[in-house]
Amino acid sequence: MKVVIDTSRSPYAKLYPVPLDAIKIEDDFWKPKLQVLRKNAIPFVYEQLERTGRIENFRRVARGDYNIEWRIADDSDVYKWVEAASYALAYSYDEKIDELLKGVVEAINGAQDEDGYLFTLYAFDRSKRWKNLRDMHELYCAGHLMHAAVAYYRSTGRRSLLDTAIRFADHIVNRFGPGREEGVPGHPEIEMAFVELYRVTRDKKYLEISKAFIDKRGKGLIGGSMTYIDHKPFRELDEIVGHAVRSLYLNGGATDLYLETGDRELFEVLERLWKSMAWRKMYITGGVGSRYVGETFGDDYELPDRRAYAETCAAIANVMWNWRMLYATGDPKYMDVAELALHNGALSGISLDGREYFYVNPLADRGKTRRKPWYECACCPTNIIRLLSYLPGLLYAISDDGIWVNLYVQSAARIPFRDQTVEIREYTRYPWDGLVEFEVYPEKEENFVIYLRIPGWCKSSRVYLDDKQVGNGTPSTYFKLESRWCKGSRIRLEMEMPVELVKAHPHVLCLWERVALRRGPIVYCFEAVDNPGIDVWDIALHGKTSVRAIYDPNLLGGVTVLEVDGYIIEYEDNLYTSIEEEIKVKPRKLKAIPYYAWSNRNPGPMIVWVKHIKQ
Amino acid sequence: MKVVIDTSRSPYAKLYPVPLDAIKIEDDFWKPKLQVLRKNAIPFVYEQLERTGRIENFRRVARGDYNIEWRIADDSDVYKWVEAASYALAYSYDEKIDELLKGVVEAINGAQDEDGYLFTLYAFDRSKRWKNLRDMHELYCAGHLMHAAVAYYRSTGRRSLLDTAIRFADHIVNRFGPGREEGVPGHPEIEMAFVELYRVTRDKKYLEISKAFIDKRGKGLIGGSMTYIDHKPFRELDEIVGHAVRSLYLNGGATDLYLETGDRELFEVLERLWKSMAWRKMYITGGVGSRYVGETFGDDYELPDRRAYAETCAAIANVMWNWRMLYATGDPKYMDVAELALHNGALSGISLDGREYFYVNPLADRGKTRRKPWYECACCPTNIIRLLSYLPGLLYAISDDGIWVNLYVQSAARIPFRDQTVEIREYTRYPWDGLVEFEVYPEKEENFVIYLRIPGWCKSSRVYLDDKQVGNGTPSTYFKLESRWCKGSRIRLEMEMPVELVKAHPHVLCLWERVALRRGPIVYCFEAVDNPGIDVWDIALHGKTSVRAIYDPNLLGGVTVLEVDGYIIEYEDNLYTSIEEEIKVKPRKLKAIPYYAWSNRNPGPMIVWVKHIKQ
Repeated sequence: MKVVIDTSRSPYAKLYPVPLDAIKIEDDFWKPKLQVLRKNAIPFVYEQLERTGRIENFRRVARGDYNIEWRIADDSDVYKWVEAASYALAYSYDEKIDELLKGVVEAINGAQDEDGYLFTLYAFDRSKRWKNLRDMHELYCAGHLMHAAVAYYRSTGRRSLLDTAIRFADHIVNRFGPGREEGVPGHPEIEMAFVELYRVTRDKKYLEISKAFIDKRGKGLIGGSMTYIDHKPFRELDEIVGHAVRSLYLNGGATDLYLETGDRELFEVLERLWKSMAWRKMYITGGVGSRYVGETFGDDYELPDRRAYAETCAAIANVMWNWRMLYATGDPKYMDVAELALHNGALSGISLDGREYFYVNPLADRGKTRRKPWYECACCPTNIIRLLSYLPGLLYAISDDGIWVNLYVQSAARIPFRDQTVEIREYTRYPWDGLVEFEVYPEKEENFVIYLRIPGWCKSSRVYLDDKQVGNGTPSTYFKLESRWCKGSRIRLEMEMPVELVKAHPHVLCLWERVALRRGPIVYCFEAVDNPGIDVWDIALHGKTSVRAIYDPNLLGGVTVLEVDGYIIEYEDNLYTSIEEEIKVKPRKLKAIPYYAWSNRNPGPMIVWVKHIKQ
Repeated sequence: MKVVIDTSRSPYAKLYPVPLDAIKIEDDFWKPKLQVLRKNAIPFVYEQLERTGRIENFRRVARGDYNIEWRIADDSDVYKWVEAASYALAYSYDEKIDELLKGVVEAINGAQDEDGYLFTLYAFDRSKRWKNLRDMHELYCAGHLMHAAVAYYRSTGRRSLLDTAIRFADHIVNRFGPGREEGVPGHPEIEMAFVELYRVTRDKKYLEISKAFIDKRGKGLIGGSMTYIDHKPFRELDEIVGHAVRSLYLNGGATDLYLETGDRELFEVLERLWKSMAWRKMYITGGVGSRYVGETFGDDYELPDRRAYAETCAAIANVMWNWRMLYATGDPKYMDVAELALHNGALSGISLDGREYFYVNPLADRGKTRRKPWYECACCPTNIIRLLSYLPGLLYAISDDGIWVNLYVQSAARIPFRDQTVEIREYTRYPWDGLVEFEVYPEKEENFVIYLRIPGWCKSSRVYLDDKQVGNGTPSTYFKLESRWCKGSRIRLEMEMPVELVKAHPHVLCLWERVALRRGPIVYCFEAVDNPGIDVWDIALHGKTSVRAIYDPNLLGGVTVLEVDGYIIEYEDNLYTSIEEEIKVKPRKLKAIPYYAWSNRNPGPMIVWVKHIKQ
């Protein structure tokens, strides 16, 4: 089955995936982005992987060429590309990509040692293998190999890479499995991967080692540092800390493990960590990890906007973890966070043309931060294409009693449900508009539930079945629409999507008396290029500011902009001055664009959190 | 002459130093701190240097023991202690300190190689010497040796350490002097030191090499990084960037060089860098260097309060540089910055008992940041004791036409001026009060000027000569009081010292609508221990807030506290919420203490910049 997270046989899953190829996206928001993914980003990243020797390294190993070029985690970049390309093929076959894929898979397969080991850097030096689990990313790369292999297998049915991954997995189990050598990865990722490999193979040893890698943390095996989430046992964590990507990948692995084992203690840790993150440590964009030092989470409410680190990968990991939490619970709060991070802090990681990437995602900038075609540590480019390739998988899910709509996207779906296929045609301009209409075509009439997600941002919504209002939505719930569905049943969900002026908790000291614009799941920013003649850092709004949301099909690939009757402050140029020094306020028409789309035009200052003034 | 910066023969100096032993400090603010310096801090730091093997390393070299314990810049910590202890002796002899000094000096002298080289780490391995000027701190340590030697010589008249320093200096000149090997130090400091060594020896080769070390930067000799201020030639700099301590030490060296050579181009660079720092990159405490990453200056207006780095050493370096700029110009703006950094961002670096030290100086904290007795990189403890040992040297200066009062401290001074000694008795409770009275006792009647510094913070002041008002002071000027001075001439300077509510430039985004309390040169903060039952991060003040300054002799060694009729905000505990969500404001009596004195009692939250509300 062509799915991203295969909970279809997970005993503790509340939701099960709908295959990628069951969904045909037909909207103006995601469809062009997925075309850019296939036409630009996947081939472009491939070229970068070739240019930088990352793919060639595998070929070098195969032919006994010792000149391995190496930067940390190089192999994983290739694996992540394979995963992205595989899932992208799953719902839209592209011969060119498939040819590239075959070549890369062949290269990878050819680099495996006879004992199953596969890590190009140490291909020729067995004495160095597994000596430094904290830093050397062998287990991290192995995890990405498994994910790639599972994706390639699910998407194409081809087993060769899966067999390679299984051989490496078994090599790892033999070395680090229960009763063997003690060790945990410095960079988690393999915990999720082993569970996914279990889902394909049903071999329980993969669950066992995933559990061991989670439960052996905090015993100082990799130095005991908080940055590596090794300062205390996972089950004792009550605050989300450490390297943001590592932390969230680890949580993703623990969630995957819970889905298979029902380990409640583990789940309670995950709930604590989720609250710590979502309630006290997350940017308004869904980005996380506020500190440059160690790429870590900060303390509670430590969310600097100008020097936000908010690595693209961390926002992606946030989507991935919340997706799993949603499957474990059916709780829409997880989808709220996934949606937020997806549309803002993750999507900002890639340029509109798919060829430039952010690593760091500031929420205010003087115009110096620009996306780059590549990074020496290339985790973000390869991660964002991977996330985009997953996208169709996020729209729908199923449960025993019904079909769940998680993310509204104009699309046609053919959803396998019970012993039939339910076709759902979805019409909406989401995320630019809150009206969503469905036509349901079951093969046969049947009673089941359609769960409609009412996002947390949506304070007012109404649900209609065949033109009859059946209820109002409550924010951050699934509206349970039970019916005997027949061919042509119609649902209409009307979600009001006003522009919201948002403020932050007063302990986010840097955001005191500052305000951000949000509309639906989209966070806005002001960019210099749209606001000539002023410095956007001088923008001020008050609570009654008039804002108009207007769709502009010609701007930034088509976006809803906000036209704002705001203000510009005027002041003397002193670093410190008396509070009595006057600040003048002058009305000014302003334009805001979606945060994810900034830095695609002329460089200049940008700001999300503008000044709040009282009138 | 027992002086810190000896500009007495510097052709381009506007001001000349007054010897440390000409000043007898008799106040309640500095005198106790200098007693703590002698009785606690200097012996305590000595113990740490012994405990950590830093002094023993020198003895190990002398006896051929290869077991050098090493952390970066270890030797410099010993040298800085020697410098501090030497200057502390200069104005208050202490037999115990002198005995320690003799022992340390003997250890240092014994570790010098026969070719003059002196760096304990490479004492036994000539092949490693001078191979990595960027990282290995040989030149940095050499600079501190010269400073220590000059201080010890000036204070005690003993030449042994000076001879050692000269031998090492000559070794360096022979290696890196004009026409020799190209190289610059990764960590500037030696630029100042060579000029001071020149001032003792009058050997011009030391000026030449100092100039070379300044002018060879920016040519990529140490990698071309901005962090090391090697990205462009010094003379082309127009923005203060890079590692804050390195940057300011380098500027200090360039200023020393200007004082001797009158190189105007160099001085123009220094003025540009000063404006860049003081107008756009300095904390309200005079602390600088806002970034954790690289301990560097941030961009313009990048001054996060909670994650301020503001290393103690950087505030100290700020004092040291501005002190030199003052001597070069007589411009009081430099003394304004020196005074600010001294009383706040530097003084916060040491506990009231002299035995604990801050490395990082946040301006808001949850109570986790505490001073420590020692650091593996011990630059800050050894630097703050050095700065305190300089203190009496900052009070007065002389010029050809008169005597300058830079810093008001109750004291008795016997100032060598022209061919006589002018005794000045100064009475004041500064920095707690703005009234300063002087009695002047020249040996003989003479016409000259007494320059009274009117600090930048002082908006209103009056000057009286023998009870007759002679004028009003203008902020950030020296009031030029010309008279024929006779025994018992009296001056009275009345400086109004109201509590100021200060705000920051609107581009310091994180400080928008936040307010700090400042009174005279002292910046205040709210600490949990003084404000029970509330969270000081919830404090709010408005422009008309009533504040009373009250001296409390029993608190924190005697401080003027601020009693504030302020407010506490009350709110729902949401990370993000609508701007329309109400924040309630409740009146509350509050107490603020000087920032430098925080974290000397029970741990808890602290904040400088509280919320500004409008009433």
